[in-house]
Amino acid sequence: MKRYQALADTMAAEIRTGRLPVGARLPSVRHLTTQYGVGQSTVFRAYYLLEEWGLIRARERSGYYVAPGAKLSMPPIPPMPPTPLAEPAPIDVSSLVFSVLDAVKRPDVAPLGSAFPSPALFPLQRLAKSLAHATRMLDPWSTVTDMPPGSEPLRRQIALRYIGMGIAQPVEELIVTNGAMEALTLCLMAVTKPGDVVAIESPCFYAALQAIEHLGLRAVEIPVDPRDGLDLDVLAEALDKHPVRACWFMTNLQNPTGVTLSVEKKRALVALLAKHDVPLIEDDVYGELHFARERPPPAKAFDTQGLVMHCASLSKTLAPGYRLGWVAAGRFADAIRRLKLMTSISTSIPIQAGIADYLEHGGFDKHLRKLRGALLAQRDAMEHAIARWLPPDVAFVRPDGGYFLWLQLADHVDAMQLHRRGLEHGINVTPGPIFSARHAYGNYVRINFGHPWSPQIEHAMKTLGELLRASA
Amino acid sequence: MKRYQALADTMAAEIRTGRLPVGARLPSVRHLTTQYGVGQSTVFRAYYLLEEWGLIRARERSGYYVAPGAKLSMPPIPPMPPTPLAEPAPIDVSSLVFSVLDAVKRPDVAPLGSAFPSPALFPLQRLAKSLAHATRMLDPWSTVTDMPPGSEPLRRQIALRYIGMGIAQPVEELIVTNGAMEALTLCLMAVTKPGDVVAIESPCFYAALQAIEHLGLRAVEIPVDPRDGLDLDVLAEALDKHPVRACWFMTNLQNPTGVTLSVEKKRALVALLAKHDVPLIEDDVYGELHFARERPPPAKAFDTQGLVMHCASLSKTLAPGYRLGWVAAGRFADAIRRLKLMTSISTSIPIQAGIADYLEHGGFDKHLRKLRGALLAQRDAMEHAIARWLPPDVAFVRPDGGYFLWLQLADHVDAMQLHRRGLEHGINVTPGPIFSARHAYGNYVRINFGHPWSPQIEHAMKTLGELLRASA
Repeated sequence: MKRYQALADTMAAEIRTGRLPVGARLPSVRHLTTQYGVGQSTVFRAYYLLEEWGLIRARERSGYYVAPGAKLSMPPIPPMPPTPLAEPAPIDVSSLVFSVLDAVKRPDVAPLGSAFPSPALFPLQRLAKSLAHATRMLDPWSTVTDMPPGSEPLRRQIALRYIGMGIAQPVEELIVTNGAMEALTLCLMAVTKPGDVVAIESPCFYAALQAIEHLGLRAVEIPVDPRDGLDLDVLAEALDKHPVRACWFMTNLQNPTGVTLSVEKKRALVALLAKHDVPLIEDDVYGELHFARERPPPAKAFDTQGLVMHCASLSKTLAPGYRLGWVAAGRFADAIRRLKLMTSISTSIPIQAGIADYLEHGGFDKHLRKLRGALLAQRDAMEHAIARWLPPDVAFVRPDGGYFLWLQLADHVDAMQLHRRGLEHGINVTPGPIFSARHAYGNYVRINFGHPWSPQIEHAMKTLGELLRASA
Repeated sequence: MKRYQALADTMAAEIRTGRLPVGARLPSVRHLTTQYGVGQSTVFRAYYLLEEWGLIRARERSGYYVAPGAKLSMPPIPPMPPTPLAEPAPIDVSSLVFSVLDAVKRPDVAPLGSAFPSPALFPLQRLAKSLAHATRMLDPWSTVTDMPPGSEPLRRQIALRYIGMGIAQPVEELIVTNGAMEALTLCLMAVTKPGDVVAIESPCFYAALQAIEHLGLRAVEIPVDPRDGLDLDVLAEALDKHPVRACWFMTNLQNPTGVTLSVEKKRALVALLAKHDVPLIEDDVYGELHFARERPPPAKAFDTQGLVMHCASLSKTLAPGYRLGWVAAGRFADAIRRLKLMTSISTSIPIQAGIADYLEHGGFDKHLRKLRGALLAQRDAMEHAIARWLPPDVAFVRPDGGYFLWLQLADHVDAMQLHRRGLEHGINVTPGPIFSARHAYGNYVRINFGHPWSPQIEHAMKTLGELLRASA
């Protein structure tokens, strides 16, 4: 551990134990250099780290103070051990994933393991109105004209949202799909054949692992740090060493870590892949759920080669269960349109018409602001519950959006066992190993804060704490 | 050619040339045995064939008479040449299929090449009402509970329709899909892995060929006679000779031939596959469009082993563009449910709810009766147009349902060229070679009679006749 990290950890402990209370001014730089025998830059780097962890705040011309709520914060997640570059390998994860997913439907189980936010957060009645109106007005011939690439009015509405991100997205390259999952799979099919190597993240959204397994591909895993995301050095090495045919990455609010790549890293990623002429399948289904002032741009924003296939949907932002997604497919648009026609004929025509109507008239941006506010409040409630109920050796990086927390548990905890024991107690946590081709992350779980706070969830967190303490 | 076939052909020519006019009594059996030097049974078999062709009708205790409209009938399709059992082969048909399908969207082209009936034949307003009502009433949690296998109320409604066919279909084995296409692909994925051999029909629905190509499977083609369907002897030979892992057959109103397997052949097919423990993927999307008194049963009705996966949809019978299908998956239900979850998460929840509401309250059977009546009238109009405009060497077997005619053209006609020339003249016919892994059926086309008769269609048929005569 570097000296500045050790110093930050020491000061974090002072804050968490209450010896430095909320609002207290931190000791001066001079004081700390003397006290700990370190240089000024070490002190500053420790400050920056504490600030990043949300423990302290700078006040202009006045120094650093302990941040409100800091006492509730968990220890920061330790740096991940350096991952050796794995050989591309076939994946066998599906049966594990299914056994975990099958528990989600049980209504008696607290939804900490859910992959979705609460359906109560969505404007379902307003959507129903748009769907009813659009279906009543539907031109019978739209069953033909709205086949892939999809309804033109809908694709125009989607293109407008890209303009909002500063992207001039040609309508012709937008293909409407049955949710983002279909978009991602079609992209993968369009640029690979069985046996090919695909670069994925580690930890990785389990459905990507399943898709790769299902299509007979091999995967090389690129580590994702919960604080700054994908390791581009390892990716560069992988691109040099292996015949990587495609990358499948989540650039914003990555599942499960919640990390968002900085604009600089996105630019560098796009440039690196352009150099190798490797397509990027960009999974950006959470980007709209940011808590920052501005929506983080996708890597697609920096793509000048048509190499980025930007996949998104409304399943997590507006219309769960409608199954409406799309891909901005760049140079692969025609191949993907044909694959879509071949494998699922079309996305439901009334759904396309209803969503187009909503996007034009329904007030999507107003809904999004409300949804983000709700998720932010739920994140804070969840952090409080963690501080209240979970043992102090549970660590996480606070996500700046979405509805997942990626919890690092004590080394000895077996997340698979915790998952099983949890189900017996009416809790479903998503165990780390399903996010890894090699069943790594044995002491990690993902928990969902997408549900309005309730006594059931509070109780579930208390029970989770008891189970964790019992496993010690 | 057998003697009874030669005799039938001779008598058919008498009728078509008008020497035996409509309503005329046919010569007696005794007269014919003497005139042609054949046995009584040969005469009777010739009579049965003429009756099957729609040229003559029996009157009880009075003999056979030339049927009304017989003069308009085309020459019967000659027996197909015996097909040698092909070696299983990889398929490369997709690019050909796409170039043909891409023309369907052009509004200036007469829809003879369409794969769908006219959307005007469906109760779109009544469906819109059900969709609006069901979506307004939707339980937000249905986004979770209606995930695969799908909405329980919908699956109960679907199970009721099986009861109408005399099949006690367990609701648990029904999986709702995005149309039949997804159901069929999931079935194929569930029982094969790349390189496996699948038995398919020849001619074969082109999407089956595409799915097999796309999944890296190999195909062995079993000939389908337009009069009595699949050749079970060749199938038995294929099952003995090759490691067939699955069959994909259309048992009712096969696409493109329109042939329906007899109950006896369905029983024999199920028994043969049970003997070899080979699953049947049964594509039954046209069965409800029969013109017979009763819906022809699917092969599933005779399955006692759970080996038949019966796939169907409402895309051709009720709700085009809604993308609502299902599979009655027998022993493969759980595998298919998981594959569905993995590849497309869920079928659109509002669509499931809307269709469940329609099936319960919308009057589906009444609509079906009306639809069948319309298609029957359109078939007759198409047959008249063929007789009026196409050269006399165009042959077909009259289909007893659906909305396709499989036309055998003169030997010298190149259907691919006819397709291209047709597009230049505003006609789209579906060329035979896309229905074959080996690009056979070079002088066949499929035409669609699913559209209410119109001057555009009449004109298209006239143009088609001119193109055919010009190609002579």
